[in-house]
Amino acid sequence: MSLITVGTMAFDAIETPFGKTNQIVGGSALYVAYAASHFIQPVQQISIIGGDFPSEELDELKGRGVHLDGVEIVSNKKSFFWSGKYHEDMNSRDTLVTDLNVLADFDPHIPDSYQGAEFLMLGNLMPKLQLNVIQELKQRPKLIVMDTMNFWMESAMGDLTIVLKYVDMLMVNDAEARQLTGQFSLVKAAKAIMEMGPKYLIIKKGEHGALLFHADEVFYAPALPLEDVFDPTGAGDTFAGGFIGFLAKTGDISFDNMKRGIIVGSAMASFCVEKFGPTRLKEITKEDIDNRIQQFKNLVNFDIELV
Amino acid sequence: MSLITVGTMAFDAIETPFGKTNQIVGGSALYVAYAASHFIQPVQQISIIGGDFPSEELDELKGRGVHLDGVEIVSNKKSFFWSGKYHEDMNSRDTLVTDLNVLADFDPHIPDSYQGAEFLMLGNLMPKLQLNVIQELKQRPKLIVMDTMNFWMESAMGDLTIVLKYVDMLMVNDAEARQLTGQFSLVKAAKAIMEMGPKYLIIKKGEHGALLFHADEVFYAPALPLEDVFDPTGAGDTFAGGFIGFLAKTGDISFDNMKRGIIVGSAMASFCVEKFGPTRLKEITKEDIDNRIQQFKNLVNFDIELV
Repeated sequence: MSLITVGTMAFDAIETPFGKTNQIVGGSALYVAYAASHFIQPVQQISIIGGDFPSEELDELKGRGVHLDGVEIVSNKKSFFWSGKYHEDMNSRDTLVTDLNVLADFDPHIPDSYQGAEFLMLGNLMPKLQLNVIQELKQRPKLIVMDTMNFWMESAMGDLTIVLKYVDMLMVNDAEARQLTGQFSLVKAAKAIMEMGPKYLIIKKGEHGALLFHADEVFYAPALPLEDVFDPTGAGDTFAGGFIGFLAKTGDISFDNMKRGIIVGSAMASFCVEKFGPTRLKEITKEDIDNRIQQFKNLVNFDIELV
Repeated sequence: MSLITVGTMAFDAIETPFGKTNQIVGGSALYVAYAASHFIQPVQQISIIGGDFPSEELDELKGRGVHLDGVEIVSNKKSFFWSGKYHEDMNSRDTLVTDLNVLADFDPHIPDSYQGAEFLMLGNLMPKLQLNVIQELKQRPKLIVMDTMNFWMESAMGDLTIVLKYVDMLMVNDAEARQLTGQFSLVKAAKAIMEMGPKYLIIKKGEHGALLFHADEVFYAPALPLEDVFDPTGAGDTFAGGFIGFLAKTGDISFDNMKRGIIVGSAMASFCVEKFGPTRLKEITKEDIDNRIQQFKNLVNFDIELV
């Protein structure tokens, strides 16, 4: 089954309590692509980059079955740049620099070669652009998943409300779910969001795992307790990539298979944070992933007769 | 198997975003007793109360198989009183009043009739008193679990370090585990604590569930996502009571059975927060508990073939 992913490909400069990088590659669609390509090819990427984006990185992606027909290259401009510094708890960070550069002109379109895809992952982006992508599809995918952020809730809530009606699943963090609904209880927030359009909702809680909601069902996936979180950048996107990659691989969008997808996404995210940027996502093998998934099984597995 | 519990029986006055109580019964040992007595009788209580503690509450406890031979009644003094106000997130609270009253004179001793107990739950208390209780036991219990808090880390760290060497399991929250060890990573904190004495460690994370550590093993029990947390007071003690009550009932202290115990404790805690004080713990039936445990199974259960 084929998968379209839309989002940023960028440069990041990251500072954590463990160290500091200069400009390294990043962006939501880059993390999604590296994670998803462990499960499904092709990953049909839609993004925009400047002439400064390293050609070796594009080659690396191509080598992993990531199609770049939908990645616009603006040779005389710079790629999107973000710089941030994490606090000691690694759950919060300050943005130091945001240079939109080419992203200011991003007007994503679907190449003909991508038409007919069965899965669509809409990375965090201006809601109007997310809607454009959906409306350009000649055939509705089996599953449309969208990410968004607080910035759009504050600046483009009208458009966001419209996009929500077109997607099957929203993926946000706990603070965003609360902000979107004004509900502190995540159970109440989930109900409110599912009344806005998406039939499925994933609420990401960082080191505390993730919740999957659908109708009256709920599933709680833990995060793996780690000795060190080296760099959380891209963990949420990697989670999304693992999730949608696994669903696209299996072609099964049942609630039970979504549970498996969340475990796969959590496993991929647990690799992502082990080194700066997408480094670990390029190193790991199928065996590493299988072992990590087994760790998740051991982590939550229990049997109990009723007491 | 018999169980000794040591801790406070008190009056609380609680304010949450949902309402306010006048003086209602509370205290760590009271919650532990109500929770544990759903699984095991007798619960052999050690505590201290004033002449003002309601005799109906003592009758209620006795009716549930809670022995009170070890509860000292100081007729001419008042019971320990605590008053607190929860913030909107329900994870943090301000203490408004702490009147030690009889607690200032608490010098717990083990009645002869309690000797030979196989399980000991040491509620949060001055470490020196916890040690006294352990040293009065003629026969070492199969499992000694202790709770403690930041206050003792700041005021009685020397004594606390000694008690830790005598117990099998420490039960603390995430902030306390960090404070006790100076490690931010809970995995590192767990390792450090297990080097201080306890072979087992439970780290409680409130709405984010609980972690059980032993040697290189780790188990993650979720908390049930709830629409409303009405009053979190006593949830941690209720968790402890459900955990140790289930272990005492089954007599099995294997890691696998401790996993079950944590699920039982989490289920009991999820009832506790539904109403003010210990109200729900008195209302629920075996069927309610079984149903809630089934909800936990559904919440985390997944099957996955390696990918």
